[in-house]
Amino acid sequence: MAQEKKPRFIHHVGMKVDEVKPGSSRCTLAVQEFHRNGTGVVHGGVLFTLADTAMGAALYQSLDEGEICATIEIKIGYFKPVFEGELVCNATMLNKGKSVASLEATIHNGDLLVSKASGTFSIFRRRTDAHGAQPAVSE
Amino acid sequence: MAQEKKPRFIHHVGMKVDEVKPGSSRCTLAVQEFHRNGTGVVHGGVLFTLADTAMGAALYQSLDEGEICATIEIKIGYFKPVFEGELVCNATMLNKGKSVASLEATIHNGDLLVSKASGTFSIFRRRTDAHGAQPAVSE
Amino acid sequence: MAQEKKPRFIHHVGMKVDEVKPGSSRCTLAVQEFHRNGTGVVHGGVLFTLADTAMGAALYQSLDEGEICATIEIKIGYFKPVFEGELVCNATMLNKGKSVASLEATIHNGDLLVSKASGTFSIFRRRTDAHGAQPAVSE
Amino acid sequence: MAQEKKPRFIHHVGMKVDEVKPGSSRCTLAVQEFHRNGTGVVHGGVLFTLADTAMGAALYQSLDEGEICATIEIKIGYFKPVFEGELVCNATMLNKGKSVASLEATIHNGDLLVSKASGTFSIFRRRTDAHGAQPAVSE
Repeated sequence: MAQEKKPRFIHHVGMKVDEVKPGSSRCTLAVQEFHRNGTGVVHGGVLFTLADTAMGAALYQSLDEGEICATIEIKIGYFKPVFEGELVCNATMLNKGKSVASLEATIHNGDLLVSKASGTFSIFRRRTDAHGAQPAVSE
Repeated sequence: MAQEKKPRFIHHVGMKVDEVKPGSSRCTLAVQEFHRNGTGVVHGGVLFTLADTAMGAALYQSLDEGEICATIEIKIGYFKPVFEGELVCNATMLNKGKSVASLEATIHNGDLLVSKASGTFSIFRRRTDAHGAQPAVSE
Repeated sequence: MAQEKKPRFIHHVGMKVDEVKPGSSRCTLAVQEFHRNGTGVVHGGVLFTLADTAMGAALYQSLDEGEICATIEIKIGYFKPVFEGELVCNATMLNKGKSVASLEATIHNGDLLVSKASGTFSIFRRRTDAHGAQPAVSE
Repeated sequence: MAQEKKPRFIHHVGMKVDEVKPGSSRCTLAVQEFHRNGTGVVHGGVLFTLADTAMGAALYQSLDEGEICATIEIKIGYFKPVFEGELVCNATMLNKGKSVASLEATIHNGDLLVSKASGTFSIFRRRTDAHGAQPAVSE
């Protein structure tokens, strides 16, 4: 089933989920040539993908059996351009309600805080039917 | 020079800049297997990359000779999950000052509005030195 | 009961809800001396209060009997400083799910777009007990 | 001159700037009847005004002679409803460039984290002319 396939886009982007606990996680990415845009700076979409994934993983780990989550919205700020090296993203949960959770994530390049994101996620139960083929949606 | 190399990350993600005018642009992406995450839904980082690139392109086209721009922050909201088909992103400029501009972008999947983003961008002049090799940074 | 008391803070700020339909609303405010900060510019909190209230009213009008809503998060951008005159805020619904809705609001000062906001709201049912005195919370 | 008048809106809202250092500040507000909306919950605009003012004050204190600042955008998330007591807002600078700074603010009600905000601010020099009467604008 589709749900059991391994995540694809994060592999395509080249990031790793290094550590995940209920309410926190750490993801990393080694900057490669294809992460950059025309000016040599790492594309904002790379850092966003790190932050979104890290926050989602931290929340997912805190869920009850049968619950899943989806991103409602994220704001990400870029403080310094990234050219090379490793990106380390740490996500933390700020608040968890029954159906909505708030998390934030920092991204460091070496010692430098290069980006910070905050996100809202929905928590819900997968809709299952006899075929089990309908992917879950968040509403 | 690095500045003249073609954008890389947007090629890696598989998106195209279809149309760009001063203050507006249209980018598209045909959903492929690698865009999805483990549940079959297109990763939020794919839609974000579309929106960031479309807003940046719309602004860049409106700049004066010698000016460049960089993303300061973006907020993106996800309304509906995307599974397949084409994503069409339209970016528009809301306000342009001397050093800061505000843009927004909608993303449609067929007729459905699946995402909307708003962003702040800095406008600045490239710092050049004798070697011309130092990539520009926004501060 | 507390729930039937009239809104207080919006009266204190001096704004009016001029028009409200399911999914849209219009609020206005005539700039007064106390809205300004030390430099003579209207405080960002005034514009935010307009946008939050307008989006909440537009959503509330679209709810089913017994449902209420609460703000989860709002991002607001400021494009031009406001010194005097009238502020007109128009809110529109972008998406409505079962438990989460997304809206946006523009604020004009005369013909000028001075601010734009986007917000996420939760939709839920009031928790009632024998006393009916416990105000609802969104979780 | 208008620039030398005391801040008005924050007095109208009833908040105090308790402590301000370059890059950080603490503002407080004692919840009163007029801060609430019709359901008895403190209006989001009250918490936003606290956060905006606290971040602005923290940044302003770090500026050079002749520089001023203005809010470009703020995102604020609401985690728990506030009914009474004191609100304590702590602002911190995350990054400061030449013309743009990023700050964040937490708001506690007792021990509870009820809200968190992140903002982008522009730093610029006041435009003066022979009359000195034109208030500064951020572009």
